[in-house]
Amino acid sequence: MRLHLNENPYDFPYFLKRKILKAKWNIYEEKDKAKKLISEYEKFPVSGILPGNGADEIIFLIMLAFNKKVVSNFPSFSGYKNFSQILDRDFIEIELDENFDIDDKNILKIKDGILFIANPSNPTSNLFSEEKILKIVEKFNGIVAIDETYIDFSEKDSYKKFLNRYKNLIIIKSFSKSFSLAGIRFGYAISNREIIEKLEKKQLPYSLNSIALSSVKYIFENIDLFKNRVLKIIKERERMISEIKKTGLFILPSKTNFLFIKIKNRSILKELKKEKLMFKIFDLGKKGEFVRISIGKKRDNNKILEITRRYQNEGSYF
Amino acid sequence: MRLHLNENPYDFPYFLKRKILKAKWNIYEEKDKAKKLISEYEKFPVSGILPGNGADEIIFLIMLAFNKKVVSNFPSFSGYKNFSQILDRDFIEIELDENFDIDDKNILKIKDGILFIANPSNPTSNLFSEEKILKIVEKFNGIVAIDETYIDFSEKDSYKKFLNRYKNLIIIKSFSKSFSLAGIRFGYAISNREIIEKLEKKQLPYSLNSIALSSVKYIFENIDLFKNRVLKIIKERERMISEIKKTGLFILPSKTNFLFIKIKNRSILKELKKEKLMFKIFDLGKKGEFVRISIGKKRDNNKILEITRRYQNEGSYF
Repeated sequence: MRLHLNENPYDFPYFLKRKILKAKWNIYEEKDKAKKLISEYEKFPVSGILPGNGADEIIFLIMLAFNKKVVSNFPSFSGYKNFSQILDRDFIEIELDENFDIDDKNILKIKDGILFIANPSNPTSNLFSEEKILKIVEKFNGIVAIDETYIDFSEKDSYKKFLNRYKNLIIIKSFSKSFSLAGIRFGYAISNREIIEKLEKKQLPYSLNSIALSSVKYIFENIDLFKNRVLKIIKERERMISEIKKTGLFILPSKTNFLFIKIKNRSILKELKKEKLMFKIFDLGKKGEFVRISIGKKRDNNKILEITRRYQNEGSYF
Repeated sequence: MRLHLNENPYDFPYFLKRKILKAKWNIYEEKDKAKKLISEYEKFPVSGILPGNGADEIIFLIMLAFNKKVVSNFPSFSGYKNFSQILDRDFIEIELDENFDIDDKNILKIKDGILFIANPSNPTSNLFSEEKILKIVEKFNGIVAIDETYIDFSEKDSYKKFLNRYKNLIIIKSFSKSFSLAGIRFGYAISNREIIEKLEKKQLPYSLNSIALSSVKYIFENIDLFKNRVLKIIKERERMISEIKKTGLFILPSKTNFLFIKIKNRSILKELKKEKLMFKIFDLGKKGEFVRISIGKKRDNNKILEITRRYQNEGSYF
């Protein structure tokens, strides 16, 4: 079971796929309609919206538009580092503090750059302190991009409400996780008009496909369906966190659709593999080794819980 | 009617769209299967194939992979210039000769660079002399990318047969025109392993969507259907060229799915607009002003012919 890429366990609804078939595949689709729909959904001016071929393209456009070194947390989404390497750009990462919170002090020592903050954090699954993030946005000498790919699972407000206050702030959102569209590729940037214009100038004219662009309408028309799926995943997540805590394992307070659990005995990874449950391992040095595993459907989640319980009486193994 | 972007007038077949619905939208799709299918179709090693998010992405990856100035013909596909500007790269264009053929002598005066040759040529619709192209590939001090987006309409062989001979050669192909997939975005590069590896290193990991990647299988399984559509378009093209020639207008020998016709009197453009037939205008300086218009369905093609005939007795107006 694919639990290593934080995908939504539910496929895009078939009845909506069928509606989207009506879109013509033989013609180039423009972004304008999708921009307008997102603007209405986000209650934000259309001049401040840029759709992209996944959040990935938005991240890449930010790097293309601002010729500065790239900064991110460690650990964080691997794309920040990988994409900066594609552009032969300098890359700096600042380790999260001992509470897995963002290290505002060390970040603010950096002179100029593009700072990417995944919040909720990937792979650590937690939310960073709002006070620290705002302090960074206010004082950082450069662009701050808050990547809210997992925000729908956090039940928290987007930082877009601070866009009026900070002219160096960009919000990144994605349809890949909460709206089951990883394979179709759709994400967007929200920022002020000046920044959005800079990003759009760097975008290839037809980087978005017509399926992605037509899906926007159908998702917003059926938003309750998608939000209910998100709630179902959140409910499963809370059940899993509470069950895993009972085993004595160290697990972070996830506000995403995945769990980040400390590994004490690597033999448990073999058992996950035996059950064909895919995951990713992260070595955080002093903090230890962790496994990141997505919330799946109930049956797979129960398998994970069963494996963790098997180790319970022998101490903290995972 | 959209006749300004060289789109295929026939939508992707509905029964194939329905099959492609089976692809999961919620998961990230890998490129491997598509690479293998293209390798079989092209009878070329899989290590020499790279699928991209449209031919556009392939063009952009070539520019990212080779940090050289960009060279193209004038006129040529606008992407070569536009994408070089995105990367703040120097751009040089060499005017086609008086026969609308490639100017090998002036191109070979350029020291180093990435040369993009659209063959058949966009917007001029003709094929360049093979002798001149091969002389350029052999002697050009840099990368030569032959963009064969329109090759299926030319009934000519691909230049891929020369890949073994020239290590600086890249072939670019597209599903947008001949296979009705403009909106879905699928193209690919064919070259030697070293170049393909360089390009892939510059590619974002999930730039291709799962619809594009799954379509490959269904297109190749139904290749006759798509080839018959191409033949139908070629037949329409030949009919239109022969009819337009009768009016005394200057039209290039198109080997694409569009026509390139000299404008003598701009009033004819108003008539095309009145009939809602979309087109693009190209100002070639000394050579004059030209209209580029796609081959559409019979009804639209007949409208174009009707308009050109209306001007026949008054001389060469178009």
